[in-house]
Amino acid sequence: MKITCSKSELLSSVNIVMKAVSNKTTLPILECILMESNDAIKLTATDMELGIETYVNGTILEPGKIAIDAKLFFEIIRKLPDSEVTIETNENYQAVIKCEKSKFTISGKSGDDFSLLPEVERNQKVHLSQFTVKEFIRQTIFSTVENESTKLMSGELFEIEGNHLKVVSLDGHRISIRNVELKESYDLIKVVVPGKTLNDVSKILPGGVEDDVDIYFTDKHILFEFDDTKVVSRLLEGEYYKINQMLTNDYETKININKKEFLDCIDRASLLIKESDRKPIIIYINNNEMTLKIDSAIGSMNEELEIHKEGKDLIIGFNPKLLMDALRVIDDEEVQVYFMNQKAPCYIKDNDETYRYVVLPVNISTTNV
Amino acid sequence: MKITCSKSELLSSVNIVMKAVSNKTTLPILECILMESNDAIKLTATDMELGIETYVNGTILEPGKIAIDAKLFFEIIRKLPDSEVTIETNENYQAVIKCEKSKFTISGKSGDDFSLLPEVERNQKVHLSQFTVKEFIRQTIFSTVENESTKLMSGELFEIEGNHLKVVSLDGHRISIRNVELKESYDLIKVVVPGKTLNDVSKILPGGVEDDVDIYFTDKHILFEFDDTKVVSRLLEGEYYKINQMLTNDYETKININKKEFLDCIDRASLLIKESDRKPIIIYINNNEMTLKIDSAIGSMNEELEIHKEGKDLIIGFNPKLLMDALRVIDDEEVQVYFMNQKAPCYIKDNDETYRYVVLPVNISTTNV
Repeated sequence: MKITCSKSELLSSVNIVMKAVSNKTTLPILECILMESNDAIKLTATDMELGIETYVNGTILEPGKIAIDAKLFFEIIRKLPDSEVTIETNENYQAVIKCEKSKFTISGKSGDDFSLLPEVERNQKVHLSQFTVKEFIRQTIFSTVENESTKLMSGELFEIEGNHLKVVSLDGHRISIRNVELKESYDLIKVVVPGKTLNDVSKILPGGVEDDVDIYFTDKHILFEFDDTKVVSRLLEGEYYKINQMLTNDYETKININKKEFLDCIDRASLLIKESDRKPIIIYINNNEMTLKIDSAIGSMNEELEIHKEGKDLIIGFNPKLLMDALRVIDDEEVQVYFMNQKAPCYIKDNDETYRYVVLPVNISTTNV
Repeated sequence: MKITCSKSELLSSVNIVMKAVSNKTTLPILECILMESNDAIKLTATDMELGIETYVNGTILEPGKIAIDAKLFFEIIRKLPDSEVTIETNENYQAVIKCEKSKFTISGKSGDDFSLLPEVERNQKVHLSQFTVKEFIRQTIFSTVENESTKLMSGELFEIEGNHLKVVSLDGHRISIRNVELKESYDLIKVVVPGKTLNDVSKILPGGVEDDVDIYFTDKHILFEFDDTKVVSRLLEGEYYKINQMLTNDYETKININKKEFLDCIDRASLLIKESDRKPIIIYINNNEMTLKIDSAIGSMNEELEIHKEGKDLIIGFNPKLLMDALRVIDDEEVQVYFMNQKAPCYIKDNDETYRYVVLPVNISTTNV
């Protein structure tokens, strides 16, 4: 194999496939990037769950392929001068990387035992902007949780029905939902995508509003296709949690509050909580004023916030982190928070329900109040 | 005690004294900041080696003092709204911190057992620009080394003679020297300043070219005074290493080389070296060309660089990190490197000798070459 390409193009392509390189593996081949030059210069990496392939603009002087240690290859390319790079391999799978007056020689592997990415049948194509995909991942990923016994919680539900995509993530204490309107209508699709895949996709998506992502689904896999890149991931198996019973529209108390003030106030209060002692913050809703209180071994704080209230007064306790995570990814200046009572989940949603965040309260004994 | 001041002024003052707060101590009082309001609002922190005091612009409503946990205080102030802050203490040493509608109550200490900073007699004042001090610290600090058995290596020699300041740091493999011309003339001063102190001073110095630092010396202490801040540090005791015999001006080979190209080339080569195996890079000087080679278990590299040479050809080996550390802090576009032979230290210096970096070579067996 012999190819030439620009350092910067090669670097950005290597950077993309690096996301699928296994960090902890006993199979040395999974620490490699496969470089192939037949019709085009293609890079592939896979950790068996997730596979990424992408193309590099360049010239093929001699077709062939080689598997190279991903980290070393990335570091070498990164530190080369910003100039034309030539990569040439010999029959012993040694790769010679030349750039200006610099010449590296490293050992590779034949690449014959490199796992190919699964072929994903391109049936229904769901078409979204890169911006939208990057956003809904950011706005939901924080409530996934890595846990062997509740594997499905490490993923997110993608539910498509008609021209509507619903993205859901949850752990034992909260549910995060984003609703996206699609340009076309589709048959029902319901899959659970691993959180790690979504994190990686989010990192390599440039995220332009005008740029597209095509998403394809099979029973076992999801395929994201954008620019010159394909990301294939296994889906999580099993039926996702039934959340509809948690999604009431009833409430006894509804408040409108400035999002930034609310978030900053909880953030300050959380200073007085050590990870270990799980003290709740306590919210007093009283007419058009909210008072936020915390009383811990470290100290105490209270702060008043202006709100607009409908319904009953209320005293309720929360783990501050859960409220902050949700408020941080809401872009509205004002938010509406709905409460039922001291023990029922509260929810934050906008009028069109483009988002809904459900948060369970913390039980507060009367001595806390 | 009762004071008011702006959040931003308070935060930047707390940030300054935080540098002297002990991270690991068995004395809880050393984890505190002392806040005093008599003629002015003063903050003090000390870890017994290093002490910092600074002032906050504000209004004193009631004089007094209190010692408050530094980290907690810093975090609270940081997260307050950008507005006026009031701090009030009561007879139980509780501090109430108010800002807009937010109110924190935390426990403090009387501050009576807080260690005062040592009084430093203000005899000779050495006057420098903040920029100069920050620069010579950055340009020498990397070759200090923390080691119990060679305590003096953790500090830097400050040697003032006439209108000339020499700053020296060294470890077993290299010497870094910066020479600074002073505006006035002084009697001989020769002290060793702890590296940690210099690191901290460098962090809190704003570093303006027009802004000043006054430095005072006693037998035991050094005092830096700038803006509203005083930094007092103990000096290291003992006589510093005699380095003059290492500072020859003789050479057999002298090269001129582009600094950036040289640095980038060594940086690339160092990719092929694992921390553990201590492979040297090997430099071949041959007429007006330098070839840099490395051959390790990971792979091999060679690269040619244009140089201008005077004197003999040479083959010599180096630990790449030592060369890179020195080249990184030299701002010249071209550097001059002087060699004696394969076993003698090389040195990099400019014509006026504002800097000199001495680096020991690594012994290379003939099989390496």
